[in-house]
Amino acid sequence: MSSLATATPSEVRQIIRNNQWVKPTSGVAEGYTQGNLAILPKALAYEFLLFCQRNPKPCPVLDVTDLGKPHLPLVAPEADIRVDLPKYRVYRRGELVEEPTDITHLWTENMVGFLLGCSFSFEKALMNAGVPVRHIEEDCNVPMYKTNIQCHKAGRFEGPMVVSMRPIPEHQVVKAVEVTSQFPNVHGSPIHIGNPASIGIEDINRPDFGDAVPIRENEVPVFWACGVTPQAVAMQVKPEIMITHAPGHMFVTDRKE
Amino acid sequence: MSSLATATPSEVRQIIRNNQWVKPTSGVAEGYTQGNLAILPKALAYEFLLFCQRNPKPCPVLDVTDLGKPHLPLVAPEADIRVDLPKYRVYRRGELVEEPTDITHLWTENMVGFLLGCSFSFEKALMNAGVPVRHIEEDCNVPMYKTNIQCHKAGRFEGPMVVSMRPIPEHQVVKAVEVTSQFPNVHGSPIHIGNPASIGIEDINRPDFGDAVPIRENEVPVFWACGVTPQAVAMQVKPEIMITHAPGHMFVTDRKE
Repeated sequence: MSSLATATPSEVRQIIRNNQWVKPTSGVAEGYTQGNLAILPKALAYEFLLFCQRNPKPCPVLDVTDLGKPHLPLVAPEADIRVDLPKYRVYRRGELVEEPTDITHLWTENMVGFLLGCSFSFEKALMNAGVPVRHIEEDCNVPMYKTNIQCHKAGRFEGPMVVSMRPIPEHQVVKAVEVTSQFPNVHGSPIHIGNPASIGIEDINRPDFGDAVPIRENEVPVFWACGVTPQAVAMQVKPEIMITHAPGHMFVTDRKE
Repeated sequence: MSSLATATPSEVRQIIRNNQWVKPTSGVAEGYTQGNLAILPKALAYEFLLFCQRNPKPCPVLDVTDLGKPHLPLVAPEADIRVDLPKYRVYRRGELVEEPTDITHLWTENMVGFLLGCSFSFEKALMNAGVPVRHIEEDCNVPMYKTNIQCHKAGRFEGPMVVSMRPIPEHQVVKAVEVTSQFPNVHGSPIHIGNPASIGIEDINRPDFGDAVPIRENEVPVFWACGVTPQAVAMQVKPEIMITHAPGHMFVTDRKE
């Protein structure tokens, strides 16, 4: 358990803002929703929001900043997304160029920040329901795969859905669906149960992102829409600038899970 | 029951397109979702979509057209929103100027259409569950009220939430919440149960829109977010042009309820 497990979201953000916590946010401010950040130029904001609206399972929008304002009015109005994440990634025309701990020097009046749901919340609910989460047991990253499921296109944004996979014991598959169905803001119910080939995954042991995990006897691979999708799709447009959280270094909201 | 109750959505839209059905769509293509239409100029589209994203209960977005394209890619890709509704309302700078049955002459490459959930679906579910729907029993319009609940602002769009009210027998209030909770795309669960004054409604017998209905002994007024909200809010911005469906004259989608 992290030393910030019982801290409030605003305490956590203050510590992060002071650069006293430059590491992943898993386990901090327990019970509060964390989110994935994507900052884009205004010229892409409408099409990106429409892409998310058309593809809510991979792209669950928690909040959007007002143009040029680094605040999230619904989930953390006091926070500043330029300094309140432990680490960022800066992409120029699709190329990673910088991993700063503060993006104040890059922020302009022309930017919009999108906060998208991340799977931390529903994984905790799975474990609380007694359903094992393999990559947490194995202390590695969740395996993620590109599929043959095309997202609904919106303007310049298009591409395949990326999914995460968790091996679930046969007798707990129904429970896993029931539990995650209760989190529509964080990818919700699975998009596929069972056969990787039928969603275009050739080798379950070779994920496109993250780490492979063992699937044991009497376990079924279960696939959920993954928050990597919108970032992967946005990257293909090669925006002049795009800023995201560094993997695992999330934004901590004031909202209870 | 309407003579188009058992017609398919595409049959209904063809008949409407031929101007053979210029009346409300209540009861047509039973079992299929109907929606409220709002067409706005491109310059307002992003802020309107963001307003809906921030206020999903009064503004449940079912689909959005691509810029300048009169098609709804998710819910009825073959349809044409310029001709497939029985009657439209055209507003210029907030003033109603025309009620045509076809808007082809007004459509430009600069327009975006938004389809929003309407309460027909959840009212049928209430009745199927044995919960009475008073304004249907009384054959009048649902009573609607402006409240003191402010919507979350987005750019130029702001204003109070409008709610609809249905009197529910005390012993069925829980059931009414359970049933409508299952329709998050159509306003979902109530926003208030019981006391009109606590959401800023002074006189329950004088609705701001629609018709008053009797509240009988042992009935409780139950309030749901209402799809009039986004239109009321958009109207305050006085867009150069805004086109909506005429009340009750909805768009019939291919999507099952």
